[in-house]
Amino acid sequence: MRPKILFFDILGSVVDWRGSIAAEVAGFFARHRISGIDAVVFADDWVGRYDDAIEPVRAGTRGFVTLDIVNRETLEASLAVHGLSAAAFPPDALADLNAGWRRLKPWPDAVEGIARLKRDFIAAPLSDGNTRLLVDIPRLSGITFDTIFGADVTRGYKPMPEVYRGACALLGVAPAEAMLVAAHAYDLAAARACGLATAYIARDRAAADPSKAPDPDAAKGWDMVADSLTDLADQFARQG
Amino acid sequence: MRPKILFFDILGSVVDWRGSIAAEVAGFFARHRISGIDAVVFADDWVGRYDDAIEPVRAGTRGFVTLDIVNRETLEASLAVHGLSAAAFPPDALADLNAGWRRLKPWPDAVEGIARLKRDFIAAPLSDGNTRLLVDIPRLSGITFDTIFGADVTRGYKPMPEVYRGACALLGVAPAEAMLVAAHAYDLAAARACGLATAYIARDRAAADPSKAPDPDAAKGWDMVADSLTDLADQFARQG
Repeated sequence: MRPKILFFDILGSVVDWRGSIAAEVAGFFARHRISGIDAVVFADDWVGRYDDAIEPVRAGTRGFVTLDIVNRETLEASLAVHGLSAAAFPPDALADLNAGWRRLKPWPDAVEGIARLKRDFIAAPLSDGNTRLLVDIPRLSGITFDTIFGADVTRGYKPMPEVYRGACALLGVAPAEAMLVAAHAYDLAAARACGLATAYIARDRAAADPSKAPDPDAAKGWDMVADSLTDLADQFARQG
Repeated sequence: MRPKILFFDILGSVVDWRGSIAAEVAGFFARHRISGIDAVVFADDWVGRYDDAIEPVRAGTRGFVTLDIVNRETLEASLAVHGLSAAAFPPDALADLNAGWRRLKPWPDAVEGIARLKRDFIAAPLSDGNTRLLVDIPRLSGITFDTIFGADVTRGYKPMPEVYRGACALLGVAPAEAMLVAAHAYDLAAARACGLATAYIARDRAAADPSKAPDPDAAKGWDMVADSLTDLADQFARQG
């Protein structure tokens, strides 16, 4: 059955968060004359803290906080393990570095792919990011969605089932009428368990995402598998 | 202070709900060979039940229900007062008439006006409509927003303060950084009471909206007053 709704994972699936954050860190280090710390290593440490930092919210031992807040906390932790004190920087400088998450750059196929898919399907991010972060990324990238479902709308983080079910309810569809488009198997598995269709997008560098364990079977078992968002649009076009 | 966010009221401000619903009703009457009932009178009766029907949700005596559900209830009430029984129609036919709210037509200035305003401001509906209704109207109209705040996201109906405050919180802005663009004084007054800036759009037929009492002072006292959404864009352009 052809879906009515395409939900897009954003971090790693539509945007290259790891590479984008590494570039933001490199700029921050240059502006503050910090040498001797590799920006990619620092970015991997920062991004790599993402999953553990969110876990208390998923487990219900911490009330809901946005990704903006979680990222700021993990940034300070990454600074500390690299011997840097958050207090040594102007507050605006750290806020700006943290706002780098609102400037994440799309993969090369994302702008065209989503524009084509949006013609035939209602298209919306379904992401751990908060609404404002998910508004800013498409505005800067030239991507247009129909609406946005951030974690602060469903008040949950993936793979919590209320994330997938809540977004379907807000769009007035049964889960089977929606498809999740994502580069992460754990996300697709959770969507499938809620009854959604699934499209896996192969992202080489997403597989190296330091916040998730690698999975050699990641591309197996989904309703659709594509190399890119333009490839996904091509596959739908061939279905007619 | 120039706002960062423009929230748009939709029903009456961006779309001509009264005229659109009258046209939907006329089509329904023609398909079902109903004569002797004026479609405009019927539409006014239906739209006119809107405010009273939502009041129990605002007052907290009824749990949250979407506008889709409220509209279906008021449709059946309007059918009944016109001597028509909902049971006399195929369920799909009534569902389709109710779905006319997802096909409301924009005022002539809305597509261009919002496109121009969206270049400089984050633009989002802030409406009593539910998310799906607010996704479908722009898709059919060719309007693009950055995201959508339906009543089912903030879980409240205007003029409840949580509607305005909740949308600002999701966008990570103080109320003073946001402006409500609307054709209804009660909506603007509530936004202003929450600290938002206000832009009044004069809509002649919205003043005749049967669900709201007329207000001769409606255009007075707001931060901006415009004849249309393109006029509002012109005024911002002149501010530079």
